[in-house]
Amino acid sequence: MLRPLAPLAVSAILSLVACGDPEADEATPPVTTPTPPPAPTEPEIEQPAFMATVAADGARAGEHSSAFEHVEGLTDAAGPRLAGSLGDALAVAWAIARMNALGLANVHEEPVTVQAWVRGGARLSVLAPVPHDLPVAALGGSVGTPPAGIEADVLRVASLEALAALDGATVEGRIVFVDQIMERARDGHGYGDGVGVRWGAASAAGALGASAVIIRSVGTDASRFPHTGVMHYEEEGPRIPAAAISNADADVLARWIAAGQSVRLNLRLDCSEAGPASSANVVGEVVGSEHPDEIILLGAHLDSWDLGRGAVDDGAGVAIVLEAARQLAASETPPSRTVRVVLFANEENGGAGASAYRLAHGSELHQHRLALEADFGDGAVYAIRTPVDPATSVAWARLMVALEPLSVTRDDGEPHGGADIGDLADSGVPLMDLRQDGTRYFDLHHTANDVLTEVDPESLRQAAQAATIVASWASRDPDL
Amino acid sequence: MLRPLAPLAVSAILSLVACGDPEADEATPPVTTPTPPPAPTEPEIEQPAFMATVAADGARAGEHSSAFEHVEGLTDAAGPRLAGSLGDALAVAWAIARMNALGLANVHEEPVTVQAWVRGGARLSVLAPVPHDLPVAALGGSVGTPPAGIEADVLRVASLEALAALDGATVEGRIVFVDQIMERARDGHGYGDGVGVRWGAASAAGALGASAVIIRSVGTDASRFPHTGVMHYEEEGPRIPAAAISNADADVLARWIAAGQSVRLNLRLDCSEAGPASSANVVGEVVGSEHPDEIILLGAHLDSWDLGRGAVDDGAGVAIVLEAARQLAASETPPSRTVRVVLFANEENGGAGASAYRLAHGSELHQHRLALEADFGDGAVYAIRTPVDPATSVAWARLMVALEPLSVTRDDGEPHGGADIGDLADSGVPLMDLRQDGTRYFDLHHTANDVLTEVDPESLRQAAQAATIVASWASRDPDL
Repeated sequence: MLRPLAPLAVSAILSLVACGDPEADEATPPVTTPTPPPAPTEPEIEQPAFMATVAADGARAGEHSSAFEHVEGLTDAAGPRLAGSLGDALAVAWAIARMNALGLANVHEEPVTVQAWVRGGARLSVLAPVPHDLPVAALGGSVGTPPAGIEADVLRVASLEALAALDGATVEGRIVFVDQIMERARDGHGYGDGVGVRWGAASAAGALGASAVIIRSVGTDASRFPHTGVMHYEEEGPRIPAAAISNADADVLARWIAAGQSVRLNLRLDCSEAGPASSANVVGEVVGSEHPDEIILLGAHLDSWDLGRGAVDDGAGVAIVLEAARQLAASETPPSRTVRVVLFANEENGGAGASAYRLAHGSELHQHRLALEADFGDGAVYAIRTPVDPATSVAWARLMVALEPLSVTRDDGEPHGGADIGDLADSGVPLMDLRQDGTRYFDLHHTANDVLTEVDPESLRQAAQAATIVASWASRDPDL
Repeated sequence: MLRPLAPLAVSAILSLVACGDPEADEATPPVTTPTPPPAPTEPEIEQPAFMATVAADGARAGEHSSAFEHVEGLTDAAGPRLAGSLGDALAVAWAIARMNALGLANVHEEPVTVQAWVRGGARLSVLAPVPHDLPVAALGGSVGTPPAGIEADVLRVASLEALAALDGATVEGRIVFVDQIMERARDGHGYGDGVGVRWGAASAAGALGASAVIIRSVGTDASRFPHTGVMHYEEEGPRIPAAAISNADADVLARWIAAGQSVRLNLRLDCSEAGPASSANVVGEVVGSEHPDEIILLGAHLDSWDLGRGAVDDGAGVAIVLEAARQLAASETPPSRTVRVVLFANEENGGAGASAYRLAHGSELHQHRLALEADFGDGAVYAIRTPVDPATSVAWARLMVALEPLSVTRDDGEPHGGADIGDLADSGVPLMDLRQDGTRYFDLHHTANDVLTEVDPESLRQAAQAATIVASWASRDPDL
């Protein structure tokens, strides 16, 4: 049933309270209650009938959300799910079952071959100045150490740039400690700066003769959890072990070194490459009633790092896109276009799921009318980035109106998708970004503490509601 | 130099703001600013001259605090310091050096023989329903498992009472999971309830034939850190391994079991008793000028659990009592009585330091005029418990006035000291308690996350300031 929708333009009426100034002349008459000012004039956008359905889908997502239950279901059923692991296979099975239970159509898996890596044990022993062990996490893709570990004095550098300025004689044989601090920010921009250290430190230090590298965690918490994450070796040059320590311990090492004390460590990592393994992208759809071949892609990734249970990264994203699809499958009016949920394999350490999707769906990429990806945790959506300026597009202007009740505004940056859908832009797929509040995301990201108890059900619900509104609109608006 | 002190009775003068009621008749004349009401009458306590010195000592402790630096110094110099370990010996050496640097007198160590226990490795593998490992911590004093671990199905009980209601056939061979949740509270009373589980679960489950026991951490955080702490075996009955899992993981186990899933675990603990080892209480004094034989005892414990670095438990307490002594040593007027700081050994797993102190100082316990203990983290002091009602004691009434600027009130509960000084009451030593805000203390307590970055410098400063005022007053007031 389609109902005409009243314009949603928000006009706040200020309720002014008369408050006498105690320092004013007592003869001054009291301030009277003013009549409310006229509502500010805003351009009113004519809302076609389908926008009532968009609003209804969004309202339902706000009132009857299962988003948190999706995270609970996934993390309880699969646990950690590094690509190619048993947990990864359990996650695929869970996703298939959940999509079917939510009423999605064409639910299936698409095979992905991944390069597996296994963590094994890890131990970082401080030998001097104060013997004790520190929590440590191998970076994903690191080589292991000999069984007895690598023992060496520590050389601290504040950044990769500072490391590059050193000569080999200074670095030779040392365990290099890259002590770069990540900045906390709502938009998570500190991660972009920090991740370069994680990615490149091993090759940079190895090229100068280091025996191993440890980094201050790329994370914003001050606690004792180290943050893992993928790293990389250049083709040429030695491959040295690489690991992260917590911010709390990085502070201690930095203070010891600042005080002139020699720090000697033994690092033992049992991790290793484990060759090719099977994984899968999991796909499910709400099939379009008028244009089933036109696709609105909602992506998230099913794999996770192995220390926690991937509740915020990316259980939350999985929940956001599943919940949007659930609401569309339950809508009184089916969408016009097809909404396709893709839960990608192997986002964390290889990206094989993204590559497999592009390969398997190359012939229909031109029919993808929009793609978005939820991979920024459980934070509320505060803005979107759009491929077209809403000022020049009646369709995008409608979306902005529909998002007003959630206080979602437009961020005029270029949408770039994420690791799983970003490259679809090369094939002409329009991307949009949901900008989620990431203030706390990097406290948990890639740690053992990425677990359900750290997920905020309220902000997750809001993010899923925003995704529902976007998906409902994009699948219905003929002007998109 | 003694100065007379003006009465510190706080009389708040309300600054009333005239605020017109916008719904009132506009003809109503504006409310005029009233003249301030007369200050409430409070009994004014005559302040003798020495209270000016108490106030000055307290003010200095508020303005120029080294409390945080004491925690930093101890934790950086010694790391974890379980009784009898290398870190414990490093802590003793640090304490001696720090007391000397702060200008204390009679700085020395007093030997304590402790029963050492070593943790070694630990691994808890979920075998079903979802294979993965969970962070786990052996409880202090637990026996280890065979090298291959103990593998068994899990039996969940909500409390020791629920366990006691079961028969042996139900429990036989199982890993019992005691799933009792600790309550968060400012005064930490949830710990009293929870610690009974930690202390007694192994013997209770062992007596019924269990193969091992795991408990939900006695802690208030929802994160992934397990909380260790001391446990106990009854003389009679089997000794089974005992360990804690995080609250986050306890939730998962509880949900699996509630859903009817069988949970099977393999628990491997390498811990073991390590026999007698040497430790020491560290003692330093600010010697009294008039009554050097009368002692005001400020206690804290130097040892810590081994997972973290003992920053809040009990680095914070060490800092509080050291800072109070530092301020007294730096006072323009020496105290009349002797202020003695005792940093006890082995509070966490044996209490041998407390016993050794009572034995070594038995002949002078009658000269202890007051004892207090700081072992509740870095929280601000909000109340004190006193051995005498200030309404009946001019001395204690003076203290309450001196603490007013810190918003410290009296809690009319019985002071009980703590693990290190509590038994001194049997010898007639008057005890008092500093009541610190423990709302967050049990998030960190006995975890790997008990590190400097989690210490709040501001609340720690306040607590040390309160202790300074108490110590200055108690060492100077002839009426105590």
